[in-house]
Amino acid sequence: MSRTITLTTDFGTRDGYVGAIKGVIRSIAPDARLLDISHDISHGRIRQASFLLDNIIEFFPAGTIHLVVVDPTVGSRRRALIVEYKDCLLVGPDNGVFETAYRHSGAWSCHELTESRFMLRAVSNSFHGRDIFAPAAAHLALGVSPGEFGPPLENPVRQSGPRKKLFGDGRIVGSVIHTDRFGNLITDITAAELDTLGCDYSRLRVSLCGKVIRGISSHYAQAGAGELLALVGGTGRLELAVNLDSAAAVLGTPSPDAEVIVERSHE
Amino acid sequence: MSRTITLTTDFGTRDGYVGAIKGVIRSIAPDARLLDISHDISHGRIRQASFLLDNIIEFFPAGTIHLVVVDPTVGSRRRALIVEYKDCLLVGPDNGVFETAYRHSGAWSCHELTESRFMLRAVSNSFHGRDIFAPAAAHLALGVSPGEFGPPLENPVRQSGPRKKLFGDGRIVGSVIHTDRFGNLITDITAAELDTLGCDYSRLRVSLCGKVIRGISSHYAQAGAGELLALVGGTGRLELAVNLDSAAAVLGTPSPDAEVIVERSHE
Amino acid sequence: MSRTITLTTDFGTRDGYVGAIKGVIRSIAPDARLLDISHDISHGRIRQASFLLDNIIEFFPAGTIHLVVVDPTVGSRRRALIVEYKDCLLVGPDNGVFETAYRHSGAWSCHELTESRFMLRAVSNSFHGRDIFAPAAAHLALGVSPGEFGPPLENPVRQSGPRKKLFGDGRIVGSVIHTDRFGNLITDITAAELDTLGCDYSRLRVSLCGKVIRGISSHYAQAGAGELLALVGGTGRLELAVNLDSAAAVLGTPSPDAEVIVERSHE
Repeated sequence: MSRTITLTTDFGTRDGYVGAIKGVIRSIAPDARLLDISHDISHGRIRQASFLLDNIIEFFPAGTIHLVVVDPTVGSRRRALIVEYKDCLLVGPDNGVFETAYRHSGAWSCHELTESRFMLRAVSNSFHGRDIFAPAAAHLALGVSPGEFGPPLENPVRQSGPRKKLFGDGRIVGSVIHTDRFGNLITDITAAELDTLGCDYSRLRVSLCGKVIRGISSHYAQAGAGELLALVGGTGRLELAVNLDSAAAVLGTPSPDAEVIVERSHE
Repeated sequence: MSRTITLTTDFGTRDGYVGAIKGVIRSIAPDARLLDISHDISHGRIRQASFLLDNIIEFFPAGTIHLVVVDPTVGSRRRALIVEYKDCLLVGPDNGVFETAYRHSGAWSCHELTESRFMLRAVSNSFHGRDIFAPAAAHLALGVSPGEFGPPLENPVRQSGPRKKLFGDGRIVGSVIHTDRFGNLITDITAAELDTLGCDYSRLRVSLCGKVIRGISSHYAQAGAGELLALVGGTGRLELAVNLDSAAAVLGTPSPDAEVIVERSHE
Repeated sequence: MSRTITLTTDFGTRDGYVGAIKGVIRSIAPDARLLDISHDISHGRIRQASFLLDNIIEFFPAGTIHLVVVDPTVGSRRRALIVEYKDCLLVGPDNGVFETAYRHSGAWSCHELTESRFMLRAVSNSFHGRDIFAPAAAHLALGVSPGEFGPPLENPVRQSGPRKKLFGDGRIVGSVIHTDRFGNLITDITAAELDTLGCDYSRLRVSLCGKVIRGISSHYAQAGAGELLALVGGTGRLELAVNLDSAAAVLGTPSPDAEVIVERSHE
């Protein structure tokens, strides 16, 4: 059976760095199916990559190998990892990029990637994507098991998270964790959490930086063109959006500690 | 036989939306061949997507499935479609994005996509690309026939077109329908239409917004670097271009109702 | 065995030009494996494309077909080529884009692509990527040998190179040949050349446009955030970089004849 290897990097495509990675994989595992996820992660933005992973992993079949190279500290002492998470395999640097897995305790295990026989013969200091991670992904696709790549590792580097606060009196206070390509401001507040407020979406009010939105819409086009709205987006999280325009352009990009407050409307 | 599914969206790749779509398809139809066409369609620009489709469909083999997700009214009452067009299948929203097919009466037929057994179990209001269209494309690749997805539909939403006027006295008046990545201004005037003027290309003159080009060139490099020219481009349509530069940058982006006039030169 | 065809163009993806190329290949060689390398080469920038090729070719398995369409003089009298280089095949225009092969005398041979039976029936003047190069790549994937496409060609168009000067007295003078997506300024000075200076990397000094860097680092994170450094990058060449930022933004883009000087530090 030919395994799928997905590719997520911050390399862009213009310089051939991703091309080299694809060549290495093709050379080792000719039958693996390569699938581009993104090469447009912003330079070194680990959180952006882990947000992306969070949106895709559950939709892939068991056995999928996700190769992620967002690696600003390449060549330093940061470790290289293979993470088993649910029924997939994650390959990349130990810098918190796999936080999406670590958040589910008991659902993951981890090996350090130290065995040089699974690396390219010459390993550079600045391109482990090509020299270490790509060959590892390819060997996983060939059926090598994670334990053969190196010793188990219990304490991968975690992201320090903006922690969400939940207040008991009919309020949730969260924050914006991502701005997507459409300029939608995506929060860390989930649909399940909204439900704990125990009232109809139309009776909730959402505020951010003094801007107030009354009611949570069911879809973008429910608002007029150019109008601000709040809705539960495809990622299952509350987002602020502007129909046919960009909430980020209209509201500005909020500071990381700006509070998104959802509460029952008392009017 | 493993079918090809092509992907065209306005999602960009950075947020994982396209990644989720690929995961869904891989999970349902592991052997389908995924081929990225574009994820850079501008936000909600239906015409841009249908222009693109117009340039690619005829070059794909029979049986190809084209998944198109440019869907600004997702979650509203807009319908979901499967269009059979010539020997290919189109899957996407009923918002005019498949105009390229509808223009050929008799060459297409259409089914609404209503059967929930071909959708993901939980269908969101804001991401039908992942929850409805991707599973449909995957099931088509497995051999499910269009009629199984829902009832026939006779009246898909059409694009209101800028209509081309043809004057009898040696003139064609058309318009610019697309600006490509190179800044070439592509018109709706075809090579066949130019031929109806019954004279050599070198004796035609093309004008747009007061700018006049004498003669239609055979290739870009026929003009000097930075020089404006008109030629029949790879899409079979008359375009205005600047050799090694951008006509859109040099001329500005013309308003949608700006007239492109081709006529015999009387000098 | 199904052959791999890689795709490198300056087309972007939005207009469907790359989509048409993929359709043509799929129609002729349904089992060929298509692999996107880049569609973001800057408009007509032949050197950028050949730099990219230089970074990827050695990593692909024998038999890989690299299709490269950066073709500003399409439709003029420039020739179309198939180059056999080491154990891969290169297909594209005769404009110097395959300089990376020509630099290795004895390692390449070349055929002109003239046989119309391996082209689309109608060949446009402005889109040979679709009409000539894509069908040729597909036929190569089917096993047609390069000699069947046309006569041998001994004198492909070469790039005029910025030539590197090597001084005997402990100095190398080179130049910046590429700015990558991260803003790293990549020079034409290789690790092997640095070694000829016969001293430890920490004792070398690198200067560009009056800016002096003491010591060559082993990895990006060795410098503080925002700090300028020099290191041997993943392409095996000396580069100037700024940790977590862009050297191009900090230093400006150097003029093509700006000298990069590496010498022993005498402090």
